[in-house]
Amino acid sequence: MHLNTKDILSVSRSLTGFAKKRKEDIGLAPDDISFRGERKMDQVVLRMVDYDAKDFKEETIGDIQTVLEHRKNASVTWFNIDGLHDTNVIENIAEGFDFDKLVLAEVMDVHARPKVHDFSNCILLSIKMLQQDEQSGRISVENLSLIITDSVLLSFQERRGDVFEPVRERIRTQKKRIRNGGTDYLTFALLDIVIDNYIYIIGLLGEKIETLEENLLTEPKKSVIDEIYTYKRKLNFLRKNITPAKEMILSLSKVESEVIKESTQVHFKELLDNINQAVDASETYRDILSDQLNIYHTTISTKLNDIMKFLTIFSVIFIPLTFIAGIYGTNFEVVPELKYEYSYFIMWGVMIVVAIGMLLYFKKRKWL
Amino acid sequence: MHLNTKDILSVSRSLTGFAKKRKEDIGLAPDDISFRGERKMDQVVLRMVDYDAKDFKEETIGDIQTVLEHRKNASVTWFNIDGLHDTNVIENIAEGFDFDKLVLAEVMDVHARPKVHDFSNCILLSIKMLQQDEQSGRISVENLSLIITDSVLLSFQERRGDVFEPVRERIRTQKKRIRNGGTDYLTFALLDIVIDNYIYIIGLLGEKIETLEENLLTEPKKSVIDEIYTYKRKLNFLRKNITPAKEMILSLSKVESEVIKESTQVHFKELLDNINQAVDASETYRDILSDQLNIYHTTISTKLNDIMKFLTIFSVIFIPLTFIAGIYGTNFEVVPELKYEYSYFIMWGVMIVVAIGMLLYFKKRKWL
Amino acid sequence: MHLNTKDILSVSRSLTGFAKKRKEDIGLAPDDISFRGERKMDQVVLRMVDYDAKDFKEETIGDIQTVLEHRKNASVTWFNIDGLHDTNVIENIAEGFDFDKLVLAEVMDVHARPKVHDFSNCILLSIKMLQQDEQSGRISVENLSLIITDSVLLSFQERRGDVFEPVRERIRTQKKRIRNGGTDYLTFALLDIVIDNYIYIIGLLGEKIETLEENLLTEPKKSVIDEIYTYKRKLNFLRKNITPAKEMILSLSKVESEVIKESTQVHFKELLDNINQAVDASETYRDILSDQLNIYHTTISTKLNDIMKFLTIFSVIFIPLTFIAGIYGTNFEVVPELKYEYSYFIMWGVMIVVAIGMLLYFKKRKWL
Amino acid sequence: MHLNTKDILSVSRSLTGFAKKRKEDIGLAPDDISFRGERKMDQVVLRMVDYDAKDFKEETIGDIQTVLEHRKNASVTWFNIDGLHDTNVIENIAEGFDFDKLVLAEVMDVHARPKVHDFSNCILLSIKMLQQDEQSGRISVENLSLIITDSVLLSFQERRGDVFEPVRERIRTQKKRIRNGGTDYLTFALLDIVIDNYIYIIGLLGEKIETLEENLLTEPKKSVIDEIYTYKRKLNFLRKNITPAKEMILSLSKVESEVIKESTQVHFKELLDNINQAVDASETYRDILSDQLNIYHTTISTKLNDIMKFLTIFSVIFIPLTFIAGIYGTNFEVVPELKYEYSYFIMWGVMIVVAIGMLLYFKKRKWL
Amino acid sequence: MHLNTKDILSVSRSLTGFAKKRKEDIGLAPDDISFRGERKMDQVVLRMVDYDAKDFKEETIGDIQTVLEHRKNASVTWFNIDGLHDTNVIENIAEGFDFDKLVLAEVMDVHARPKVHDFSNCILLSIKMLQQDEQSGRISVENLSLIITDSVLLSFQERRGDVFEPVRERIRTQKKRIRNGGTDYLTFALLDIVIDNYIYIIGLLGEKIETLEENLLTEPKKSVIDEIYTYKRKLNFLRKNITPAKEMILSLSKVESEVIKESTQVHFKELLDNINQAVDASETYRDILSDQLNIYHTTISTKLNDIMKFLTIFSVIFIPLTFIAGIYGTNFEVVPELKYEYSYFIMWGVMIVVAIGMLLYFKKRKWL
Repeated sequence: MHLNTKDILSVSRSLTGFAKKRKEDIGLAPDDISFRGERKMDQVVLRMVDYDAKDFKEETIGDIQTVLEHRKNASVTWFNIDGLHDTNVIENIAEGFDFDKLVLAEVMDVHARPKVHDFSNCILLSIKMLQQDEQSGRISVENLSLIITDSVLLSFQERRGDVFEPVRERIRTQKKRIRNGGTDYLTFALLDIVIDNYIYIIGLLGEKIETLEENLLTEPKKSVIDEIYTYKRKLNFLRKNITPAKEMILSLSKVESEVIKESTQVHFKELLDNINQAVDASETYRDILSDQLNIYHTTISTKLNDIMKFLTIFSVIFIPLTFIAGIYGTNFEVVPELKYEYSYFIMWGVMIVVAIGMLLYFKKRKWL
Repeated sequence: MHLNTKDILSVSRSLTGFAKKRKEDIGLAPDDISFRGERKMDQVVLRMVDYDAKDFKEETIGDIQTVLEHRKNASVTWFNIDGLHDTNVIENIAEGFDFDKLVLAEVMDVHARPKVHDFSNCILLSIKMLQQDEQSGRISVENLSLIITDSVLLSFQERRGDVFEPVRERIRTQKKRIRNGGTDYLTFALLDIVIDNYIYIIGLLGEKIETLEENLLTEPKKSVIDEIYTYKRKLNFLRKNITPAKEMILSLSKVESEVIKESTQVHFKELLDNINQAVDASETYRDILSDQLNIYHTTISTKLNDIMKFLTIFSVIFIPLTFIAGIYGTNFEVVPELKYEYSYFIMWGVMIVVAIGMLLYFKKRKWL
Repeated sequence: MHLNTKDILSVSRSLTGFAKKRKEDIGLAPDDISFRGERKMDQVVLRMVDYDAKDFKEETIGDIQTVLEHRKNASVTWFNIDGLHDTNVIENIAEGFDFDKLVLAEVMDVHARPKVHDFSNCILLSIKMLQQDEQSGRISVENLSLIITDSVLLSFQERRGDVFEPVRERIRTQKKRIRNGGTDYLTFALLDIVIDNYIYIIGLLGEKIETLEENLLTEPKKSVIDEIYTYKRKLNFLRKNITPAKEMILSLSKVESEVIKESTQVHFKELLDNINQAVDASETYRDILSDQLNIYHTTISTKLNDIMKFLTIFSVIFIPLTFIAGIYGTNFEVVPELKYEYSYFIMWGVMIVVAIGMLLYFKKRKWL
Repeated sequence: MHLNTKDILSVSRSLTGFAKKRKEDIGLAPDDISFRGERKMDQVVLRMVDYDAKDFKEETIGDIQTVLEHRKNASVTWFNIDGLHDTNVIENIAEGFDFDKLVLAEVMDVHARPKVHDFSNCILLSIKMLQQDEQSGRISVENLSLIITDSVLLSFQERRGDVFEPVRERIRTQKKRIRNGGTDYLTFALLDIVIDNYIYIIGLLGEKIETLEENLLTEPKKSVIDEIYTYKRKLNFLRKNITPAKEMILSLSKVESEVIKESTQVHFKELLDNINQAVDASETYRDILSDQLNIYHTTISTKLNDIMKFLTIFSVIFIPLTFIAGIYGTNFEVVPELKYEYSYFIMWGVMIVVAIGMLLYFKKRKWL
Repeated sequence: MHLNTKDILSVSRSLTGFAKKRKEDIGLAPDDISFRGERKMDQVVLRMVDYDAKDFKEETIGDIQTVLEHRKNASVTWFNIDGLHDTNVIENIAEGFDFDKLVLAEVMDVHARPKVHDFSNCILLSIKMLQQDEQSGRISVENLSLIITDSVLLSFQERRGDVFEPVRERIRTQKKRIRNGGTDYLTFALLDIVIDNYIYIIGLLGEKIETLEENLLTEPKKSVIDEIYTYKRKLNFLRKNITPAKEMILSLSKVESEVIKESTQVHFKELLDNINQAVDASETYRDILSDQLNIYHTTISTKLNDIMKFLTIFSVIFIPLTFIAGIYGTNFEVVPELKYEYSYFIMWGVMIVVAIGMLLYFKKRKWL
């Protein structure tokens, strides 16, 4: 696998986005409808899906008037807004739907934590939507806000491209469950997909981590450590986005409101099971990564150990031999041994005995 | 003990199964009855055990009709389904028993976490069933789902072969307790065996870990580290399957439903004690493994220390001696000492004094 | 202090006992009265103490008939059973006292966690009883079960020999508090002693740990590390037995039953204080041990550091000197310096200058 | 980036201020109005802002008389006191507003933890106000106390200079939300800014930490470790000030009092979201720093490894060669090889073979 | 700073006192009034302070008769007992005040954890009183028990000398708050001082720890590690005494009893703030110490790294040079180079080239 630095940077940039506050945003009134994020597309796009058990209509619209007309119908209207930078559009919505200004100010604050707020005429919830680009492998984060009213569900996204195609498909083709449900069931369907994507993305990362494991056992290279830390950072990034969503889903499953029917509550409980599964999986992979780091370090230090042992044994054996040779390389006039005919061979004999003796000593101390 | 790589892989594959989601499963409707797992057997097998205090019948059946007939009887019917891939069978059951489609969709989702859901006409619960093959030592995981109704208990397994033989035996032979109990008591009996198997499997692993401990104290080899990490991985795998079951059992012991009699509640409390024991044991072995890792590292570094010390002392003693010999190996024309008759012997004397002096110095500094 | 391997093994064997399950015990009916432990004595021994404010009787009895007679009296009867392997005796008790079979099945399960179960006509509680042999220093564990009824307290032990002598003595001599109390007060008195023994045993271990500390500061030997790990294992063993007892005592202090008078509740609160003290102490010693390990490692690595520094300085000083001597040991025909009369002395001078220069350099870099 | 020691000291001095108690302050009566902090300005400055939906007045006043006059008006009065050392002023306020002496004694205790106390005629709350000097980068902490009554909000600061300018600006210019709100909304506005500053300051630190990360991956220098520890200390300092504020905000959102209108409660909930975001961010950066430390250590030890390997290979190759040369440097009278004409060349040959042999051996053991 | 071993021992002795149980104390009846501590003074001293808003009396008394007379008065009587070893005195008090024997048995158990027990006619509470000797710096622990009744507060200390002088002074001089308060307010005043002393003592230790930090950054010596561990032990000792007090104060603030007036409850809440501050500070210093340990280890290993690098480079440069010299020190009859006139100078040239080459290589690999 190839890890380019862009890959790492894309993660850390998101990480940055997660916590920073611009100096000029400090002290804004809480109901100040101004966009506090990074503009991610040119033009705000409004899309509407309107359906009931029998009929179904899907269109891209120019202004919110069409939506407001559907407001009093019995049919369910899903109104999706891509792009948050155009304050006019947002203010029109606030007025058209008679929302508290606070509601839309919170929609604009794309860096906030996932949350559920129960207002008098609607429920606001937000969650981070994660998407992995199939080709580049990059993971993008986007804040998704949902405003749930009796007959209209408004969804706000930072840019085009979302994970909701399967829901649209189900609305188009399948006449049964989703067509009979209300905005609360639609909310569940959307959140379900967001969380399914969490599990999917963690699973992809997990697959790479497990592949790494096999390499680690067979041949630990230095690049492994970089990979481990890259995965660790990615995983931390995922966890920081997923874990707060758990709180949100928990709050959601406890909200008491007329907007949410009892029959939908059981589905929210299922969401809780799913988000728990995502969190569990991320914990598991964190443990695995941490074990991998330990295995790597153990392997490395075992190797250093081996090298040290080899050095010791090798040099320690030659040190006395070289010393002996040095002794008989001295130029003293009187060195009795030098005269004796077999001295040279005796020296070799002594050397061999010393060398074998030391080897035996090391064997005995279990250093070999 | 021999650890083959297959052994490790079988564990990590299961680990994979624990968290992954297939791309095509994202966005399925929650009541979509489609099998989301891996097909583990050819043919769905339906088995039925029907009993009351007096009578007892056990048979393999072709379709669910036989079961539906027993439905209104006072007798308890245990209906076991091995294999989940045949959507027709599952849909027949849903219709026959008049279950919400959601119930069976959840049964099909074999990767979900252990859970208890209380529906209007039944209770659904799922738990991971662990089995250890006596010969290969491999641990297999399977999702077990139970649907509890007034007079019928449905159990869904991914493949043939389960751990419930002792319960069947008790139903066959023993006329007392289990024959007088209802589906709730049968549920308890099944869960009890699943949890007993948790304790048993952890115990088997624990035995190996403790054997390792004794080796560790006597003779630490490099293979030990591999074993420790293999056990660690196995234990993590067990923990990830067992710990969520604890939550499930806790929820179960709090469920208020007509299906569960008060006299059975005390048994559910006992299940909680047992699962706590399993979790405790796994925590204990985790601590032991972590201590073993530390002991290993300490032993290794102590050994390295010894080797380093030996090297230092050895080479440090010979360094000045070799230097002295070198001095008198120079070819200067005027080196007064070379002429003196006893120089060579004096050199030896000096060398011995230096060597002993250094040894004493090391002794003093407690390096020996 | 001498640590024999038996000492270690006795601990780890108990550890084993803590978590294992025998294959043949899986799937037993919950009310199956069969002994699931290790038989620890030959013959079941039944002892009875019967007392009220005025009278007092203590005897070893042959069958449970004597106890049953005392059942309806106003006096308090403490009936102690040593040895659980004789199923007949146990079944007689179940019938005689009209207990649910479950009650005695739980008594037989000596590996279960400490627990309190509130049955219709009695309260069952179990706790681990720790005893330290004064001479060998071995710690033995035993499961103690108490069944509390209106007028009879049944205590079940795995073998003879317990920690309750002081209570018997108080019953024999002291006419006041305990003689006026009921079975609930007697329960408190027994549990109090069990917990006092926890504190006592932890204290003994703690004393050894603190002694170790002093050795560690003055002279760290290799054996120290073995001692630390032995203590760690012992402490873990104690903690695993003591910590679940805390939950049990907490449950007990919340039980609402006619059997337990309000005046006794305050004593149960005191038990909670005591068990908390035991748990605190064990946490403290765990922290101390972990600090000791760190100190040991720091000391060892500091020592290695010193040795490395010495080696470096020593060899680094001699390396250039030996090189110089080597240069003038060459046999080239033309080496101008060799001819010069004072060359040898100049060489010495150069060598001394080099050596001092290097020492100063090391001084400057604070390596000395 | 340059880290001067003053920077570090300024942090640790604040840390000191966080926990110390002066000997002479022990045993003061709880309602003793004496200043327990460090005097941070010469003269107490009293500022008043008085507004309602229509009118607005802002002035620096000499004594509290002016404020007391506004007390009964319908308008909201924000009375800010910079400097707490003048006991007279404080006592005048206590009398003028008829506060319990305890209220102002708590205001004076600037080292206390963030808290909310609900008194009969007012709510007292305190929080740490963090400010970062744009130029020096120093972070200053100051205790901010707010006393909320029906129509007057009193804010007490230790010195001039605060973070509230945006609120004043909103009061001056914007006639809408804040002008219509009461003292409770003003409280929210002030706390909102304090918490926004937490997020902002953590973000600034986070930016430096992330920059560090990039350096760490490309070229790890020794100075990096100092930076990491400096950031760690700064972050700990921030966390210790921010985390207790979370408890305070949580308590505040639960206070039931007439002073706080229900419409403001929703804003307090938003504060909780914000402080959670700050705490999350600080946790994230703590994890990142801890990872960075690990990466640093891994990099360093990998480098040491490389050096060790090089040393081993190099010296191990030359050790036998030098030994061979030493053998033929001996001066024995009979060394047969010395006479042979091609000996010298054969020696070279042997040496080359030995060297290559060893290189191959290292290659085989994967040390190269 | 000088750390004598006595200092360390005084701490560990206290640590011992914290957890040990004497063999002979096991199985004492809970209402057995026998002293379970170490006798710390010769003679029990009884002191009485009696006051109301108008009058005030302070005296050392011989027996408890004087106190009993004041019992029915409206005035508040503070009765202090120094020394617990005289069982007669204690039993007289129990009888005189008609306390349950249990109350005074708990007072005698000086090793118990801080706690609050609510009896029918009194409230018993105990807490550890820490005092630091100004000169020796030793910290002493003492168990303080308070019995609160309507009109009398009994305080039991193990020895003379306490931290309550400021309270006595306030009673003597100040006629206001404390003179108007009851025994509950007096209780608050005493506990407040005990907790203020916690904060003060932690602050003193913290100051030393912060001083250490500065030394650590400039010049890490080996003694530093001893200091860190000594502080760690001291801090652990403080934490183990302070943390359980938090639970006690929390329980106290929830006690519902006629003895404690509502107006005093707000003060107990303040105590909770203070004890939280103490606990926070101790956590902070623990983190700082743990960071310091890490910094120390990093510094040490960086230094070792430097030394290793120096050794490698130095020896690796000389190894081939010495080898070359060795080659030409051989005594072969035919070594062509030896005859050539400029060989010696060429050898020098080659050596210099090799040395420079290696330096460049190290530079390239960034080892220099």
